[in-house]
Amino acid sequence: MAHARLSGTAPVVIIGAGFAGLAAARALGAAGVATVVIDKQNHHLFQPLLYQVATAGLSAADIAAPIRSILRDLPSVSVLMDQVVGIDRTARSVQLASGGTQCFSQLIVASGARHGYFRNPGWATHAPGIKTIDDAIRLRRDLLLALEKAETMRAEQRETRAEHLTFVVVGGGPTGVELAGAIAELARHTAEREFPHITRNCVRVVLVDSGDRLLKALPPALSAAAARALASLGVEVRLQARVTALEPGRIMIGNDSLVACVTIWAAGVAASPAAQWLGAAADSSGRVIVGPALSLPDDPAIFVVGDTAAAANSEGAPVPGVATAAKQMGHHAALAILAHQQGRPAPPFRYRRRGSMATIGRSRAVADLGWLRLSGQPAWLLWCTVHLWFLAGFRNRLVVGANWLWRYLTFESSARLITQHGDDMT
Amino acid sequence: MAHARLSGTAPVVIIGAGFAGLAAARALGAAGVATVVIDKQNHHLFQPLLYQVATAGLSAADIAAPIRSILRDLPSVSVLMDQVVGIDRTARSVQLASGGTQCFSQLIVASGARHGYFRNPGWATHAPGIKTIDDAIRLRRDLLLALEKAETMRAEQRETRAEHLTFVVVGGGPTGVELAGAIAELARHTAEREFPHITRNCVRVVLVDSGDRLLKALPPALSAAAARALASLGVEVRLQARVTALEPGRIMIGNDSLVACVTIWAAGVAASPAAQWLGAAADSSGRVIVGPALSLPDDPAIFVVGDTAAAANSEGAPVPGVATAAKQMGHHAALAILAHQQGRPAPPFRYRRRGSMATIGRSRAVADLGWLRLSGQPAWLLWCTVHLWFLAGFRNRLVVGANWLWRYLTFESSARLITQHGDDMT
Repeated sequence: MAHARLSGTAPVVIIGAGFAGLAAARALGAAGVATVVIDKQNHHLFQPLLYQVATAGLSAADIAAPIRSILRDLPSVSVLMDQVVGIDRTARSVQLASGGTQCFSQLIVASGARHGYFRNPGWATHAPGIKTIDDAIRLRRDLLLALEKAETMRAEQRETRAEHLTFVVVGGGPTGVELAGAIAELARHTAEREFPHITRNCVRVVLVDSGDRLLKALPPALSAAAARALASLGVEVRLQARVTALEPGRIMIGNDSLVACVTIWAAGVAASPAAQWLGAAADSSGRVIVGPALSLPDDPAIFVVGDTAAAANSEGAPVPGVATAAKQMGHHAALAILAHQQGRPAPPFRYRRRGSMATIGRSRAVADLGWLRLSGQPAWLLWCTVHLWFLAGFRNRLVVGANWLWRYLTFESSARLITQHGDDMT
Repeated sequence: MAHARLSGTAPVVIIGAGFAGLAAARALGAAGVATVVIDKQNHHLFQPLLYQVATAGLSAADIAAPIRSILRDLPSVSVLMDQVVGIDRTARSVQLASGGTQCFSQLIVASGARHGYFRNPGWATHAPGIKTIDDAIRLRRDLLLALEKAETMRAEQRETRAEHLTFVVVGGGPTGVELAGAIAELARHTAEREFPHITRNCVRVVLVDSGDRLLKALPPALSAAAARALASLGVEVRLQARVTALEPGRIMIGNDSLVACVTIWAAGVAASPAAQWLGAAADSSGRVIVGPALSLPDDPAIFVVGDTAAAANSEGAPVPGVATAAKQMGHHAALAILAHQQGRPAPPFRYRRRGSMATIGRSRAVADLGWLRLSGQPAWLLWCTVHLWFLAGFRNRLVVGANWLWRYLTFESSARLITQHGDDMT
């Protein structure tokens, strides 16, 4: 069914309400352009803080806000909760899982990405990634249950206890580094105070990366600082190491087999099926190859932005898959559409690098702003400020800020709840 | 397996870390008595505010705290996350789902209750209750999805839209009244501002009770005040009405068949299977009949407290199934055990009535403290103060307080997230 309200001229359609999609919707809404935002979730997620939900530091609602709330003040923008299953370029319409279709005059595809498993899709079951709130809550449950199980083991089962408390994180980018640090802290501070039979020596956190250093987007000196900070938290960093096999409870790193209770995947990128939907050319990660204005080379009315796009900077360098880049791309696509509607040509996209940072547990971080490189506590304070600033809603900013301050002062993890499927498991 | 640390004299075992179980653990821990608390969840839940999680006002972590955190400062108390599947009174041990057993010298059963379906267990699927965080998050998802679905319907489907927005709450006790009020407010304020196609007239909230008034624990004048407050929010109150049939999407009230997108059960009580575990006499709701000291008539070392017990006041009146009664009963069982260990006789339990209250949406409530009866805004302020005060952890108190203030000032529901099983549904 076509939506009744959209008869007449077809609106601009945005697929996905992540950073890129929201930036586009805001720019189009501010100009009063009729726009429909389609997302399969009802909420926008501040993904850079998702690892804190997974490690029991924050609640889901602290880092997510309903899309309708965020876009409420833009009367020309409407929101549709549905899943896209295809795009008909000839009919200029988007096919929805509910059975309906949504026509468009121009289209912005910002459907994001999931983790890539290097042609081993079966690994996703044994080593899930964290991209959604449900992912994060499942991981939180697995982490906390591992502690509960290890606690009930008797002294004779000490070896099994060590296995029950081995956590492996695959991927040394910001997500992997932040997760490994947060898991180490959760295990050290919380477990040690509340689980009489678990000491920090029982807990093993391993961070695996195939490259020769962590955080490849940062300068080597900051990579080294991050590695030192992780080591001081007891995290075992294994560089130039590749995962060669994965099965439940066991991971093979090179020729070394490790028993692990929880393995988390934070490596690789596989874009959403946008390239198939559009019948467009894609790179090896499935990202749609776009032209200088972020539109399809053969269709200037269809834009692909954010993690779904393989875009190049005006200097030819690839645009990285980070939040600031996604925002800039979404905003640019909206401006290009406005230019087109006013009969002006679309300008080429220019990526402005805002810097890159990662936090490693309590009061340590690394940050590279181009003109300034920081590590340790100053970087951590900067990291906190920047992330609070960019949180979507003002309330969330307050709540997250209060939570962080509380955790900093008390070493408490406030959201240590085991939920979801709780009934069949205890 | 018996737990290694418990060799020697068997500890006191408490089954359940609700209000009753925690009160007992605190009293025993303060006296240094070796105690093991067993719960199938890792967290204590402040159930009186669970309806606010279900209606997107609060996050789960705002009203729940890890049992280990709560009892951390009591070194003689340990916590075991496991599910009880039986009790062997001869061997003095509790059987656990993990396959282990836990010996006890004295036992306090505080395993709570679920909703009762009047010999229609099949209804539980179509009209779930809310007793756990998972229940509440499932209901939140159903409520918010109903709004999203109704929003996408075209004008010609107006009738179906009304059906998609009919919510039925069964049971006119505090939970039912508070839920019905909160759903009506969620639908009115949030939906009306953010769903262009939903007006307050599309939304129908029906509260059904078989009795002749709501909130039977309160004086009739306050019941009437609650009914008026609900009516002013647009809630349809149906008294002396019985549910006669239930199927997916449809409920039969008396001879009247109603199409309803969501039906919530907040009526009846069915105690946990403690009576079967103990081979003890139970009342019609499955609650174990206990003696004046809250122990089994034939076993002074086994206590049953909280919603699991059918206890009578010293005047012979039944003790109600409310949080304050559960706390008093748990505390009493602990004192009786301490008395026994010191060779003193266990005193009989005396229930001290603390009053009863219920809130109906924004700034309306009813409260009966015995010496004081309030309705309207003064009762609401009292309700807020009392509930903040009794929240388990200091941090939660702060967060919930800030949340309430924020919602009061802005009409926002801060936790409006559709999560859990999100993947297969959109």
